[in-house]
Amino acid sequence: MRRAGAVSPRTVMLAIAGDSAAGKTTLTRGLVEALGEDRITSLCVDDYHRYDRQERKGMPFTALHPDCNYVEIMEQHLQLLAMGSPILKPVYDHSTGELTRPELVEPTEFVIVEGLLPLHSKLSRACFDITVYLDPPEEIRREWKVNRDTAKRGYGSDQVLAELDKREPESAEFIRPQKSFADVVVRFGPIEVRQDPPDTPLSAELLLRPTIRHPDLTGVFSDVDRNAMHLKLLRDEDGRPVDALHVHGHAPREESHTVEKAIWSELGTETELPGSLGQLGEGTRSEPLAITQLLLLYHLLEASS
Amino acid sequence: MRRAGAVSPRTVMLAIAGDSAAGKTTLTRGLVEALGEDRITSLCVDDYHRYDRQERKGMPFTALHPDCNYVEIMEQHLQLLAMGSPILKPVYDHSTGELTRPELVEPTEFVIVEGLLPLHSKLSRACFDITVYLDPPEEIRREWKVNRDTAKRGYGSDQVLAELDKREPESAEFIRPQKSFADVVVRFGPIEVRQDPPDTPLSAELLLRPTIRHPDLTGVFSDVDRNAMHLKLLRDEDGRPVDALHVHGHAPREESHTVEKAIWSELGTETELPGSLGQLGEGTRSEPLAITQLLLLYHLLEASS
Repeated sequence: MRRAGAVSPRTVMLAIAGDSAAGKTTLTRGLVEALGEDRITSLCVDDYHRYDRQERKGMPFTALHPDCNYVEIMEQHLQLLAMGSPILKPVYDHSTGELTRPELVEPTEFVIVEGLLPLHSKLSRACFDITVYLDPPEEIRREWKVNRDTAKRGYGSDQVLAELDKREPESAEFIRPQKSFADVVVRFGPIEVRQDPPDTPLSAELLLRPTIRHPDLTGVFSDVDRNAMHLKLLRDEDGRPVDALHVHGHAPREESHTVEKAIWSELGTETELPGSLGQLGEGTRSEPLAITQLLLLYHLLEASS
Repeated sequence: MRRAGAVSPRTVMLAIAGDSAAGKTTLTRGLVEALGEDRITSLCVDDYHRYDRQERKGMPFTALHPDCNYVEIMEQHLQLLAMGSPILKPVYDHSTGELTRPELVEPTEFVIVEGLLPLHSKLSRACFDITVYLDPPEEIRREWKVNRDTAKRGYGSDQVLAELDKREPESAEFIRPQKSFADVVVRFGPIEVRQDPPDTPLSAELLLRPTIRHPDLTGVFSDVDRNAMHLKLLRDEDGRPVDALHVHGHAPREESHTVEKAIWSELGTETELPGSLGQLGEGTRSEPLAITQLLLLYHLLEASS
């Protein structure tokens, strides 16, 4: 299904929605590196906060609430970007909690929009060619959030855990419902049915919804170990058909490479499969992340062709 | 002539262009008071500065240069306002010279856009129903600028005069050419042919260009002292026909009231002629300012009907 954003051939728009510390930045970073900043621009819609941290202290909601964000301006800016127009984007400084000087964003061939609420409204959803929801298990996300916010945002872990509890009702009401509007739902986490030791790299389950046309992977899985990776036809939560692609954290490099080549070959491109995917930050590589990024790269390039 | 902004019946757009300290804010204030903030919104497009005061110090142009402003974003925001959409407007703090947190502007029935460059581009001009250029004699404007910037913006008068000299080439290149695109050119100043004493209140000459349909004032001037006020058919700088309305600073209240009633009666409205016009700030009233504001009020109401 093509959306309003796809009417103009100029900008291909990808949304990556998910709760705080769900992995949006890590996923985005690999895509920007693969295509290069000349071709792809990323922005975070959490910059559309209506109130700064100080003002929010006296208010009955957290930053997750739509009323705490300029949703109408976010929609307007997404429409402008989809039509190839520049925007003057507000800026929220996560380190100080202040709203500061806005910055010019000029859309390139591809734009990634990540954040808490990019799929909140019908109008915002209509701006995207491809929509992703990151859905890690809550205990994994809490761990990621504590690690990040204590290391990079100057909070104590007690503060972060208290904030998570305070946000939970609004996560349930506004963030998680966006999952139902995503073309791809990505769940990084341990595979629950397996009893892997605690240091096992995270696996990924990707729900590939038929709302967009995914590459045909039915042929490739005869060649790979079905324990490391498999594709399973399921019914989604709403009863609709969906493909679930599982990539185990221990999937051998050669096997994930076979799947990557299968995805890439469907593009009919002569360019090389990018080597920069799957980077977790400290030089470690994740096969499930690499395959997730490659699938999104496939959709970006497919939508622009 | 109706412009693009007039296609949508929702927002009537008035531009007040002119150099720094030309009287834009004083003119705007009386219009906002007359209609009330529920019906009319004013904004200043000098907020679209691309660089803050510190950054400009190392640059080869002043704040008057289009390259020193987000002209494309200004155009975009003017179009959005003209179509009745809200904008998140950047904010330039004149007291500190810093670019700060943007603010939401929701268009009301009428929007006044004042500033240095609202008529700079064809696209920006197309957003307005009525366009005004303020054109005081340079020596008067210099005096106003020194008075204001020393009193309200913390500069010394030597600094202000040096800045005026530095800005002069860009005033000539970018600000003053906007005069040719205005429907109304307002020149507050002494009447040069008269030898009035120096404390005589300023007079006004209003060029009423036939680019919009002005109220018919040809009948009313038989009733007033031709020394205090008159309407004169002229050729404009480009040879085109234009009406010049002169209002002397000493025009008697009763006579300017006769002209005001003539303008107001053309609207066919039952509401009272507003009493708040012509205020110079310290309780003093200017008949030329009152008539200028009333004429603009006429055009605002006429364009919305």
